[in-house]
Amino acid sequence: MSHSPALHDTTDIAAYMQALGQAARQAAKHLRRADTGRKNRALKAMAERLDRARQAVLAANAEDMQRGREAGLDDALLDRLALTEARIDAMIDGLHQVAALPDPVGELDGLRARPSGIQVGQMRVPLGVIGIIFESRPNVTVEAASLCLKSGNACILRGGSEARASNAALSECLKAGLQDAGLPAGTVQVVATTDRAAVGELICMPDYVDVIIPRGGKSLIERISREARVPVIKHLDGVCHVYIDATADADKALAIAINAKTQRYGTCNTMETLLVDAPVAGSLLPALAERFAEHGVELRGCERTREVLGDITPALDADWAEEYLAPVLAIKVVDGMDEATAHIERYGSQHTDTIVTQDYSLARRFMAEVDSSSVMVNASTRFADGTEYGLGAEIGISTDKLHARGPVGLEGLTTRKYVVFGDGHVRQ
Amino acid sequence: MSHSPALHDTTDIAAYMQALGQAARQAAKHLRRADTGRKNRALKAMAERLDRARQAVLAANAEDMQRGREAGLDDALLDRLALTEARIDAMIDGLHQVAALPDPVGELDGLRARPSGIQVGQMRVPLGVIGIIFESRPNVTVEAASLCLKSGNACILRGGSEARASNAALSECLKAGLQDAGLPAGTVQVVATTDRAAVGELICMPDYVDVIIPRGGKSLIERISREARVPVIKHLDGVCHVYIDATADADKALAIAINAKTQRYGTCNTMETLLVDAPVAGSLLPALAERFAEHGVELRGCERTREVLGDITPALDADWAEEYLAPVLAIKVVDGMDEATAHIERYGSQHTDTIVTQDYSLARRFMAEVDSSSVMVNASTRFADGTEYGLGAEIGISTDKLHARGPVGLEGLTTRKYVVFGDGHVRQ
Repeated sequence: MSHSPALHDTTDIAAYMQALGQAARQAAKHLRRADTGRKNRALKAMAERLDRARQAVLAANAEDMQRGREAGLDDALLDRLALTEARIDAMIDGLHQVAALPDPVGELDGLRARPSGIQVGQMRVPLGVIGIIFESRPNVTVEAASLCLKSGNACILRGGSEARASNAALSECLKAGLQDAGLPAGTVQVVATTDRAAVGELICMPDYVDVIIPRGGKSLIERISREARVPVIKHLDGVCHVYIDATADADKALAIAINAKTQRYGTCNTMETLLVDAPVAGSLLPALAERFAEHGVELRGCERTREVLGDITPALDADWAEEYLAPVLAIKVVDGMDEATAHIERYGSQHTDTIVTQDYSLARRFMAEVDSSSVMVNASTRFADGTEYGLGAEIGISTDKLHARGPVGLEGLTTRKYVVFGDGHVRQ
Repeated sequence: MSHSPALHDTTDIAAYMQALGQAARQAAKHLRRADTGRKNRALKAMAERLDRARQAVLAANAEDMQRGREAGLDDALLDRLALTEARIDAMIDGLHQVAALPDPVGELDGLRARPSGIQVGQMRVPLGVIGIIFESRPNVTVEAASLCLKSGNACILRGGSEARASNAALSECLKAGLQDAGLPAGTVQVVATTDRAAVGELICMPDYVDVIIPRGGKSLIERISREARVPVIKHLDGVCHVYIDATADADKALAIAINAKTQRYGTCNTMETLLVDAPVAGSLLPALAERFAEHGVELRGCERTREVLGDITPALDADWAEEYLAPVLAIKVVDGMDEATAHIERYGSQHTDTIVTQDYSLARRFMAEVDSSSVMVNASTRFADGTEYGLGAEIGISTDKLHARGPVGLEGLTTRKYVVFGDGHVRQ
């Protein structure tokens, strides 16, 4: 496949990004026709190429790590940047897993005959070209590319500058795999400049890019959403709630609250605020506090919580809207579900909220009234995840309401067009 | 129901729009709980209120018509502005029809058990608050309000200033109907100022408005999309194509091409460019030209078309991208389907495109390769319509790819949230 020189010349960022966009748009046209078999062959070829290039990938990563250490990156960031044999194994497994997922493209739903004689249905098709902007973890390069490819989309990937050598080495494997399967190189393109202007260009090319998915901190995502001239599927914060109703089974309530907070602290589906119905605050809060203390979780409570638990840190108004991503939990005692749902409506981020209750009618009302991307009954918020939901893999979690909401898997990377079959039919 | 004074004070536009937004957000919370029966009672009560208020509505409309004539509005605009007994009947029928449509809210799809023991599904829920901006036709007020209400959404409607008295009179009927059914007045709010700043506020209130649907000319929609800080479901132009393949049945090809162009000229699903496969250009074009001449359609052709048809107007490059909305048609002779789909890709607007062919494989490829909101085989582009597709009614046609694509009915005004049922389940 021939390569335009503009695809390699990063001196003029705008011209370079336009060249990537054009190549992606061309590739997308090709991908609309690619059948599942060919896409899967490319995914497996990528896995094989990556397996054979382990040494080159690890060497490139060592370069990034060295530069990162010199730049004084903290340990958490260095850990996310690091590649190991085990992490390469995981990327290879991931490629095979995506190959094994059902292909959503071409599904035809709801085909029915209309009184006019035409048949109308909706066919699932790729979005086209997806731009993904992410931070340090180089494995996102492989994961994002594989999901976009399987769903029939071309993608332009802009990784973090600290991972640039790793991403370039991974990109070589992906391109080689595409070539092995006879798919155009423009199917997966990794932006080869760390100049920040490239992001500005990428999010303002509606002719070449159909949707932008930013993965990273809230400030990055807010900036991209504000400046983009292309639709953005975004994930802002996860201020998730567990509400324990007075009728809750105490053991289940304890298990869910502890799991929702402590199973992992840094994830968006971790509980950040616990709401407890007043009649059971006296009996449940001490037991909860004891368990949280074992996990080293700092509690911040409303006045009524502090009446039960004694001298814990008072929760300020800002605590209710805070995504701690840390072993810190805000607790509020409420008078019944209506106060709980009003609190969730006011301070929540419409991500994931759960009720613990044995009351059928309350469960049903909570389901209908809480307007979040995941609403749960008697289950830990930590289940809000593409793998747990059976999507196979997820490219992110959307807190938007339009298009994809909640964990975004292959289906979220597609759209549906209407198809009409006639036999000379005209409108009367 | 008490009314905040801010809801009636339009001196400070920003404060007024914020007050509408707050009332809408409150109403949306209420509507999430409203069952189908209550929503239908409100729709029927609106119909009855409108029936009883015919004289007041017609008098208000006469006022608008008088002002319009004084302002020198053209006949087409005055016709769109005019209300008659028959048009009021149509609005009343429309309200009953929407009441009769199935309610999409609450549908639970794909509920399945996961290995962890939880059950996961997706529940269809209202978007929340919808802002609709439209131009002269006052019946849009009733139509838009009814679709938003049935789908469980609150709406803020901003009609054209030339229809302000009519819209205010209709708004009274809608509010009375809501009150009869015990739904909050904030469910349907018609912006009571013609100040253009109100639109600027409405499209920049993400806290209070979930989506904006502009209905009107391309320049209005482009401006709103550019300036909005809220997602926009938009309909830009409809440059629709009919491609007649060499294997097409000549009678069907003629019938479809004539219908697609002449059944109505001013609609977005009208054919604007006809593509004819070279082997049949000599036989089909003269017959087509004769029929188009009977309808008074001006033809503009490429060189090869002009070789067959003689001295018709040459089509310039700009013609291929033009939405005439008039009895004008561009014609191009192409060498096979690949040239046709490349032309559609380059000049089309991804609205509606059809192939006329007897060749099964070509039909299948056209379906897969053309990336438009409606893709058809052997049917007139004029079928691209919510009623023809069986959606019951449409709020518009979306040329976006994300969320709703093609005709947008009740389902396009909803979103899906994940629901999880457990019984004390926690994540391992």
